[in-house]
Amino acid sequence: MQRRGLLIILSSPSGAGKSTLARRLMAWDDGIRFSVSATTRPPRAGEEDGREYHFRSRAMFEAMVTDGDMLEHAEVFGNYYGTPRAPVEAALAEGRDTLFDIDWQGGQQIRNSTLGKDAVSIFVLPPSIAELEARLQGRAQDSAEVIAGRMARSRDEISHWAEYDYVLVNDDLDATEAALRTIITAERLRRDRQPGLNDFVRGLNAEFAARA
Amino acid sequence: MQRRGLLIILSSPSGAGKSTLARRLMAWDDGIRFSVSATTRPPRAGEEDGREYHFRSRAMFEAMVTDGDMLEHAEVFGNYYGTPRAPVEAALAEGRDTLFDIDWQGGQQIRNSTLGKDAVSIFVLPPSIAELEARLQGRAQDSAEVIAGRMARSRDEISHWAEYDYVLVNDDLDATEAALRTIITAERLRRDRQPGLNDFVRGLNAEFAARA
Repeated sequence: MQRRGLLIILSSPSGAGKSTLARRLMAWDDGIRFSVSATTRPPRAGEEDGREYHFRSRAMFEAMVTDGDMLEHAEVFGNYYGTPRAPVEAALAEGRDTLFDIDWQGGQQIRNSTLGKDAVSIFVLPPSIAELEARLQGRAQDSAEVIAGRMARSRDEISHWAEYDYVLVNDDLDATEAALRTIITAERLRRDRQPGLNDFVRGLNAEFAARA
Repeated sequence: MQRRGLLIILSSPSGAGKSTLARRLMAWDDGIRFSVSATTRPPRAGEEDGREYHFRSRAMFEAMVTDGDMLEHAEVFGNYYGTPRAPVEAALAEGRDTLFDIDWQGGQQIRNSTLGKDAVSIFVLPPSIAELEARLQGRAQDSAEVIAGRMARSRDEISHWAEYDYVLVNDDLDATEAALRTIITAERLRRDRQPGLNDFVRGLNAEFAARA
Protein backbone atom coordinates (compact mmCIF):
# COMPACT_ATOMS: atom_id res chain seq x y z
CA MET A 1 0.00 0.00 0.00
CA GLN A 2 1.37 3.41 -1.02
CA ARG A 3 2.22 5.51 2.02
CA ARG A 4 3.42 9.00 2.88
CA GLY A 5 6.71 9.37 4.72
CA LEU A 6 7.02 10.35 8.36
CA LEU A 7 9.08 13.08 9.99
CA ILE A 8 10.38 11.42 13.14
CA ILE A 9 11.41 14.06 15.68
CA LEU A 10 13.67 12.62 18.36
CA SER A 11 14.63 14.98 21.17
CA SER A 12 16.31 14.50 24.52
CA PRO A 13 18.90 16.13 26.73
CA SER A 14 22.45 15.33 25.69
CA GLY A 15 23.56 12.08 27.37
CA ALA A 16 20.13 10.40 27.38
CA GLY A 17 21.07 8.02 24.57
CA LYS A 18 19.49 9.80 21.61
CA SER A 19 22.38 9.44 19.14
CA THR A 20 22.77 5.73 19.86
CA LEU A 21 19.02 5.24 19.42
CA ALA A 22 19.03 7.19 16.14
CA ARG A 23 21.87 5.00 14.82
CA ARG A 24 20.03 1.83 15.84
CA LEU A 25 16.81 2.92 14.13
CA MET A 26 18.63 3.46 10.87
CA ALA A 27 20.32 0.06 11.20
CA TRP A 28 16.85 -1.46 11.75
CA ASP A 29 15.29 0.14 8.66
CA ASP A 30 17.62 1.53 6.02
CA GLY A 31 14.63 3.32 4.46
CA ILE A 32 14.87 5.86 7.28
CA ARG A 33 17.01 8.79 6.19
CA PHE A 34 18.86 10.87 8.77
CA SER A 35 18.30 14.60 8.38
CA VAL A 36 21.71 16.26 8.16
CA SER A 37 21.48 19.76 9.63
CA ALA A 38 23.23 22.82 8.27
CA THR A 39 25.31 24.85 10.71
CA THR A 40 27.61 27.86 10.86
CA ARG A 41 29.77 26.37 13.60
CA PRO A 42 33.24 25.29 12.41
CA PRO A 43 33.83 21.54 11.82
CA ARG A 44 35.45 19.60 14.69
CA ALA A 45 38.29 17.12 14.11
CA GLY A 46 36.96 14.14 12.16
CA GLU A 47 33.73 15.79 11.03
CA GLU A 48 32.97 15.79 7.33
CA ASP A 49 30.85 18.26 5.35
CA GLY A 50 27.53 16.60 4.46
CA ARG A 51 27.93 13.75 6.98
CA GLU A 52 27.73 15.25 10.51
CA TYR A 53 26.58 18.66 9.22
CA HIS A 54 26.42 20.77 6.10
CA PHE A 55 28.98 23.41 7.11
CA ARG A 56 27.92 26.81 5.76
CA SER A 57 29.07 30.40 6.12
CA ARG A 58 26.87 32.79 8.06
CA ALA A 59 26.02 34.70 4.86
CA MET A 60 25.02 31.51 3.02
CA PHE A 61 22.94 30.26 5.98
CA GLU A 62 21.08 33.57 6.25
CA ALA A 63 20.41 33.57 2.49
CA MET A 64 18.86 30.07 2.76
CA VAL A 65 16.62 31.25 5.61
CA THR A 66 15.54 34.30 3.60
CA ASP A 67 14.74 32.14 0.56
CA GLY A 68 12.56 29.76 2.63
CA ASP A 69 14.99 26.87 2.08
CA MET A 70 15.15 26.04 5.82
CA LEU A 71 12.37 23.99 7.40
CA GLU A 72 13.51 25.22 10.82
CA HIS A 73 16.52 26.99 12.25
CA ALA A 74 17.75 28.37 15.58
CA GLU A 75 20.78 30.04 17.06
CA VAL A 76 22.49 28.09 19.87
CA PHE A 77 25.65 29.28 21.65
CA GLY A 78 26.20 31.87 18.89
CA ASN A 79 25.93 29.45 15.95
CA TYR A 80 23.06 28.78 13.57
CA TYR A 81 21.63 25.29 13.17
CA GLY A 82 18.87 24.41 10.71
CA THR A 83 17.21 21.81 8.50
CA PRO A 84 17.34 22.19 4.71
CA ARG A 85 13.81 21.72 3.38
CA ALA A 86 14.33 20.09 -0.05
CA PRO A 87 15.58 16.61 0.98
CA VAL A 88 12.79 16.31 3.57
CA GLU A 89 10.06 17.06 1.05
CA ALA A 90 11.59 14.64 -1.47
CA ALA A 91 11.64 11.82 1.12
CA LEU A 92 8.02 12.47 2.18
CA ALA A 93 6.77 12.28 -1.39
CA GLU A 94 8.63 9.00 -1.96
CA GLY A 95 7.12 7.45 1.20
CA ARG A 96 10.43 7.40 3.06
CA ASP A 97 10.85 8.55 6.66
CA THR A 98 13.26 11.22 7.87
CA LEU A 99 14.75 11.10 11.35
CA PHE A 100 15.51 14.40 13.10
CA ASP A 101 17.93 14.44 16.00
CA ILE A 102 17.05 17.99 17.12
CA ASP A 103 16.29 20.03 20.20
CA TRP A 104 12.92 21.34 21.41
CA GLN A 105 13.20 24.55 19.35
CA GLY A 106 13.70 22.61 16.13
CA GLY A 107 10.94 20.19 17.09
CA GLN A 108 8.53 23.04 17.73
CA GLN A 109 9.33 24.66 14.41
CA ILE A 110 8.81 21.43 12.45
CA ARG A 111 5.50 20.73 14.21
CA ASN A 112 4.39 24.29 13.39
CA SER A 113 5.65 24.16 9.80
CA THR A 114 3.55 23.23 6.74
CA LEU A 115 4.82 19.66 7.25
CA GLY A 116 3.59 19.46 10.85
CA LYS A 117 0.90 16.88 10.13
CA ASP A 118 3.58 14.48 8.87
CA ALA A 119 5.55 14.71 12.10
CA VAL A 120 5.61 12.33 15.03
CA SER A 121 7.59 13.55 18.02
CA ILE A 122 9.28 11.48 20.69
CA PHE A 123 11.08 12.73 23.78
CA VAL A 124 13.62 10.51 25.51
CA LEU A 125 14.13 11.11 29.24
CA PRO A 126 17.10 9.84 31.26
CA PRO A 127 16.28 7.50 34.17
CA SER A 128 17.84 10.08 36.56
CA ILE A 129 19.94 13.24 36.51
CA ALA A 130 22.78 11.42 38.28
CA GLU A 131 22.81 8.94 35.38
CA LEU A 132 22.71 11.76 32.82
CA GLU A 133 25.71 13.48 34.42
CA ALA A 134 27.65 10.22 34.65
CA ARG A 135 27.15 9.66 30.91
CA LEU A 136 28.29 13.19 30.10
CA GLN A 137 31.39 12.78 32.29
CA GLY A 138 32.13 9.50 30.51
CA ARG A 139 32.82 11.45 27.32
CA ALA A 140 36.51 12.09 28.05
CA GLN A 141 36.95 14.89 25.50
CA ASP A 142 34.74 17.43 27.28
CA SER A 143 35.93 19.85 29.99
CA ALA A 144 34.11 20.40 33.30
CA GLU A 145 32.92 23.74 32.00
CA VAL A 146 31.45 22.20 28.84
CA ILE A 147 29.71 19.55 30.97
CA ALA A 148 28.26 22.21 33.30
CA GLY A 149 26.93 24.06 30.22
CA ARG A 150 25.39 20.83 28.90
CA MET A 151 23.71 20.13 32.25
CA ALA A 152 22.13 23.59 32.27
CA ARG A 153 20.96 23.05 28.70
CA SER A 154 19.63 19.58 29.64
CA ARG A 155 17.43 21.11 32.30
CA ASP A 156 16.02 23.54 29.77
CA GLU A 157 15.53 20.75 27.20
CA ILE A 158 13.70 18.52 29.72
CA SER A 159 11.33 21.38 30.58
CA HIS A 160 9.76 20.86 27.11
CA TRP A 161 8.95 17.14 27.48
CA ALA A 162 5.18 17.77 27.55
CA GLU A 163 5.16 19.14 23.98
CA TYR A 164 5.89 15.69 22.51
CA ASP A 165 3.50 12.99 21.26
CA TYR A 166 5.39 10.16 22.95
CA VAL A 167 7.69 10.12 25.96
CA LEU A 168 10.09 7.27 26.76
CA VAL A 169 12.27 6.84 29.85
CA ASN A 170 15.55 5.33 28.64
CA ASP A 171 16.19 2.87 31.47
CA ASP A 172 17.38 0.24 29.03
CA LEU A 173 18.61 0.88 25.48
CA ASP A 174 17.16 -2.32 23.99
CA ALA A 175 13.71 -1.69 25.48
CA THR A 176 13.76 1.94 24.34
CA GLU A 177 14.81 0.92 20.83
CA ALA A 178 11.96 -1.62 20.72
CA ALA A 179 9.50 1.07 21.83
CA LEU A 180 10.74 3.42 19.11
CA ARG A 181 10.31 0.71 16.45
CA THR A 182 6.80 0.04 17.69
CA ILE A 183 5.86 3.73 17.58
CA ILE A 184 7.20 4.17 14.04
CA THR A 185 5.51 0.99 12.79
CA ALA A 186 2.17 2.06 14.29
CA GLU A 187 2.38 5.63 13.01
CA ARG A 188 2.89 4.31 9.48
CA LEU A 189 -0.47 2.52 9.80
CA ARG A 190 -2.43 5.71 10.49
CA ARG A 191 -5.12 6.28 7.93
CA ASP A 192 -3.84 9.69 6.91
CA ARG A 193 -0.39 8.23 6.22
CA GLN A 194 -1.79 5.74 3.68
CA PRO A 195 -3.01 7.68 0.64
CA GLY A 196 -3.29 4.35 -1.23
CA LEU A 197 -6.38 3.50 0.86
CA ASN A 198 -8.53 5.89 -1.17
CA ASP A 199 -8.02 3.84 -4.34
CA PHE A 200 -8.38 0.59 -2.44
CA VAL A 201 -11.81 1.54 -1.04
CA ARG A 202 -12.84 2.86 -4.46
CA GLY A 203 -12.11 -0.67 -5.71
CA LEU A 204 -14.29 -2.24 -3.00
CA ASN A 205 -17.15 0.10 -3.90
CA ALA A 206 -16.81 -0.80 -7.58
CA GLU A 207 -17.15 -4.46 -6.57
CA PHE A 208 -20.32 -3.68 -4.58
CA ALA A 209 -21.73 -1.75 -7.55
CA ALA A 210 -20.97 -4.61 -9.97
CA ARG A 211 -22.86 -7.08 -7.71
CA ALA A 212 -26.05 -4.99 -7.57
CA MET B 1 4.91 3.81 35.02
CA GLN B 2 1.28 4.46 35.92
CA ARG B 3 -0.88 4.72 32.80
CA ARG B 4 -4.45 5.48 31.83
CA GLY B 5 -6.46 2.77 30.07
CA LEU B 6 -7.36 2.87 26.38
CA LEU B 7 -10.72 2.48 24.69
CA ILE B 8 -9.91 0.35 21.65
CA ILE B 9 -12.63 0.75 19.03
CA LEU B 10 -12.52 -2.06 16.47
CA SER B 11 -14.96 -1.78 13.59
CA SER B 12 -15.36 -3.61 10.30
CA PRO B 13 -18.04 -5.05 8.09
CA SER B 14 -19.23 -8.43 9.25
CA GLY B 15 -17.04 -11.16 7.75
CA ALA B 16 -13.81 -9.14 7.72
CA GLY B 17 -12.35 -11.06 10.65
CA LYS B 18 -13.09 -8.65 13.48
CA SER B 19 -14.37 -11.17 16.05
CA THR B 20 -11.40 -13.48 15.52
CA LEU B 21 -9.03 -10.53 15.88
CA ALA B 22 -10.77 -9.37 19.07
CA ARG B 23 -10.43 -12.87 20.55
CA ARG B 24 -6.74 -13.01 19.64
CA LEU B 25 -6.02 -9.62 21.22
CA MET B 26 -7.53 -10.75 24.49
CA ALA B 27 -5.50 -13.98 24.37
CA TRP B 28 -2.37 -11.84 23.80
CA ASP B 29 -3.00 -9.53 26.76
CA ASP B 30 -5.46 -10.67 29.40
CA GLY B 31 -5.46 -7.13 30.81
CA ILE B 32 -7.69 -6.13 27.87
CA ARG B 33 -11.33 -6.34 28.88
CA PHE B 34 -14.00 -6.97 26.26
CA SER B 35 -16.88 -4.51 26.46
CA VAL B 36 -20.08 -6.54 26.68
CA SER B 37 -22.89 -4.58 25.05
CA ALA B 38 -26.44 -4.39 26.30
CA THR B 39 -29.19 -5.23 23.81
CA THR B 40 -32.94 -5.62 23.57
CA ARG B 41 -32.72 -8.37 20.97
CA PRO B 42 -33.65 -11.81 22.28
CA PRO B 43 -30.80 -14.24 23.06
CA ARG B 44 -29.91 -16.78 20.32
CA ALA B 45 -29.29 -20.45 21.08
CA GLY B 46 -26.10 -20.79 23.12
CA GLU B 47 -25.89 -17.12 24.12
CA GLU B 48 -25.59 -16.31 27.80
CA ASP B 49 -26.62 -13.13 29.61
CA GLY B 50 -23.50 -11.13 30.50
CA ARG B 51 -21.22 -13.06 28.13
CA GLU B 52 -22.29 -12.27 24.54
CA TYR B 53 -24.64 -9.48 25.64
CA HIS B 54 -26.44 -8.08 28.64
CA PHE B 55 -30.00 -8.92 27.57
CA ARG B 56 -32.37 -6.19 28.71
CA SER B 57 -36.02 -5.29 28.22
CA ARG B 58 -36.84 -2.27 26.10
CA ALA B 59 -38.11 -0.38 29.17
CA MET B 60 -34.93 -1.13 31.14
CA PHE B 61 -32.70 -0.15 28.22
CA GLU B 62 -34.52 3.15 27.75
CA ALA B 63 -34.29 3.91 31.47
CA MET B 64 -30.50 3.36 31.33
CA VAL B 65 -30.23 5.77 28.38
CA THR B 66 -32.31 8.38 30.23
CA ASP B 67 -30.14 8.07 33.34
CA GLY B 68 -26.91 8.58 31.33
CA ASP B 69 -25.76 5.04 32.07
CA MET B 70 -25.02 4.28 28.41
CA LEU B 71 -21.78 5.52 26.85
CA GLU B 72 -23.31 5.02 23.40
CA HIS B 73 -26.35 3.31 21.93
CA ALA B 74 -28.08 2.84 18.60
CA GLU B 75 -31.05 1.06 17.09
CA VAL B 76 -30.19 -1.54 14.43
CA PHE B 77 -32.83 -3.70 12.70
CA GLY B 78 -35.38 -2.66 15.33
CA ASN B 79 -33.27 -3.59 18.36
CA TYR B 80 -31.26 -1.38 20.71
CA TYR B 81 -27.57 -1.98 21.26
CA GLY B 82 -25.44 0.03 23.68
CA THR B 83 -22.42 0.20 25.98
CA PRO B 84 -22.93 0.46 29.75
CA ARG B 85 -20.69 3.29 31.00
CA ALA B 86 -19.68 2.16 34.53
CA PRO B 87 -17.37 -0.79 33.69
CA VAL B 88 -15.57 1.30 31.04
CA GLU B 89 -14.84 4.13 33.47
CA ALA B 90 -13.66 1.69 36.12
CA ALA B 91 -11.22 0.05 33.68
CA LEU B 92 -9.85 3.42 32.49
CA ALA B 93 -9.12 4.55 36.02
CA GLU B 94 -7.33 1.27 36.81
CA GLY B 95 -5.14 1.60 33.70
CA ARG B 96 -6.78 -1.33 31.92
CA ASP B 97 -7.88 -1.26 28.27
CA THR B 98 -11.38 -1.96 27.01
CA LEU B 99 -11.97 -3.45 23.58
CA PHE B 100 -15.13 -2.44 21.70
CA ASP B 101 -16.37 -4.60 18.84
CA ILE B 102 -18.88 -2.04 17.55
CA ASP B 103 -20.15 -0.48 14.34
CA TRP B 104 -19.46 3.02 13.02
CA GLN B 105 -22.39 4.56 14.92
CA GLY B 106 -21.08 3.26 18.24
CA GLY B 107 -17.55 4.30 17.31
CA GLN B 108 -18.70 7.81 16.48
CA GLN B 109 -20.57 8.12 19.76
CA ILE B 110 -17.61 6.96 21.84
CA ARG B 111 -15.23 9.34 20.03
CA ASN B 112 -17.70 12.18 20.65
CA SER B 113 -18.34 11.21 24.29
CA THR B 114 -16.55 12.64 27.33
CA LEU B 115 -14.16 9.66 27.03
CA GLY B 116 -13.24 10.45 23.40
CA LYS B 117 -9.65 11.41 24.17
CA ASP B 118 -9.06 7.94 25.62
CA ALA B 119 -10.20 6.22 22.43
CA VAL B 120 -8.12 4.80 19.61
CA SER B 121 -10.14 3.62 16.62
CA ILE B 122 -9.19 0.98 14.09
CA PHE B 123 -11.14 -0.05 10.99
CA VAL B 124 -10.52 -3.46 9.43
CA LEU B 125 -11.22 -3.74 5.69
CA PRO B 126 -11.64 -7.03 3.81
CA PRO B 127 -9.14 -7.70 0.99
CA SER B 128 -12.08 -7.77 -1.47
CA ILE B 129 -15.87 -7.89 -1.52
CA ALA B 130 -15.78 -11.35 -3.13
CA GLU B 131 -13.77 -12.54 -0.12
CA LEU B 132 -16.19 -10.86 2.30
CA GLU B 133 -19.17 -12.58 0.69
CA ALA B 134 -17.41 -15.95 0.68
CA ARG B 135 -16.76 -15.64 4.42
CA LEU B 136 -20.39 -14.71 5.11
CA GLN B 137 -21.61 -17.67 3.03
CA GLY B 138 -19.27 -19.95 4.95
CA ARG B 139 -21.35 -19.33 8.08
CA ALA B 140 -23.81 -22.15 7.44
CA GLN B 141 -26.46 -20.93 9.89
CA ASP B 142 -27.45 -17.82 7.91
CA SER B 143 -30.08 -17.71 5.14
CA ALA B 144 -29.49 -16.03 1.74
CA GLU B 145 -31.73 -13.20 2.85
CA VAL B 146 -29.75 -12.61 6.03
CA ILE B 147 -26.54 -12.63 3.97
CA ALA B 148 -27.97 -10.09 1.50
CA GLY B 149 -28.92 -7.84 4.42
CA ARG B 150 -25.43 -8.17 5.87
CA MET B 151 -23.84 -7.28 2.52
CA ALA B 152 -25.94 -4.11 2.30
CA ARG B 153 -24.96 -3.24 5.84
CA SER B 154 -21.31 -3.98 5.04
CA ARG B 155 -21.36 -1.44 2.25
CA ASP B 156 -22.75 1.16 4.64
CA GLU B 157 -20.19 0.23 7.30
CA ILE B 158 -17.26 0.49 4.86
CA SER B 159 -18.42 3.97 3.81
CA HIS B 160 -17.26 5.19 7.26
CA TRP B 161 -13.67 3.90 7.04
CA ALA B 162 -12.21 7.42 6.83
CA GLU B 163 -13.46 8.33 10.35
CA TYR B 164 -10.95 5.96 11.99
CA ASP B 165 -7.43 6.67 13.29
CA TYR B 166 -5.97 3.51 11.79
CA VAL B 167 -7.08 1.36 8.85
CA LEU B 168 -5.88 -2.20 8.23
CA VAL B 169 -6.60 -4.43 5.24
CA ASN B 170 -7.06 -7.95 6.60
CA ASP B 171 -5.22 -9.93 3.90
CA ASP B 172 -3.69 -12.20 6.47
CA LEU B 173 -4.95 -12.75 10.04
CA ASP B 174 -1.49 -13.12 11.61
CA ALA B 175 -0.20 -9.93 10.01
CA THR B 176 -3.33 -8.02 11.00
CA GLU B 177 -3.11 -9.29 14.58
CA ALA B 178 0.55 -8.18 14.72
CA ALA B 179 -0.42 -4.73 13.41
CA LEU B 180 -3.13 -4.42 16.07
CA ARG B 181 -0.70 -5.36 18.85
CA THR B 182 1.76 -2.77 17.53
CA ILE B 183 -0.89 -0.05 17.45
CA ILE B 184 -2.05 -0.78 21.01
CA THR B 185 1.51 -0.96 22.36
CA ALA B 186 2.39 2.36 20.72
CA GLU B 187 -0.79 4.12 21.85
CA ARG B 188 -0.04 3.15 25.45
CA LEU B 189 3.26 5.06 25.12
CA ARG B 190 1.62 8.38 24.23
CA ARG B 191 2.47 11.08 26.69
CA ASP B 192 -1.13 11.83 27.58
CA ARG B 193 -1.72 8.15 28.44
CA GLN B 194 1.06 8.16 31.06
CA PRO B 195 -0.02 10.36 33.97
CA GLY B 196 2.91 8.95 35.98
CA LEU B 197 5.30 11.02 33.85
CA ASN B 198 4.36 14.19 35.72
CA ASP B 199 5.75 12.83 38.99
CA PHE B 200 8.74 11.34 37.23
CA VAL B 201 9.79 14.68 35.70
CA ARG B 202 9.12 16.44 39.01
CA GLY B 203 11.70 14.02 40.47
CA LEU B 204 14.26 14.91 37.77
CA ASN B 205 13.76 18.62 38.48
CA ALA B 206 14.25 18.03 42.20
CA GLU B 207 17.56 16.33 41.35
CA PHE B 208 18.63 19.35 39.27
CA ALA B 209 17.66 21.70 42.10
CA ALA B 210 19.63 19.65 44.66
CA ARG B 211 22.78 19.87 42.50
CA ALA B 212 22.70 23.67 42.15
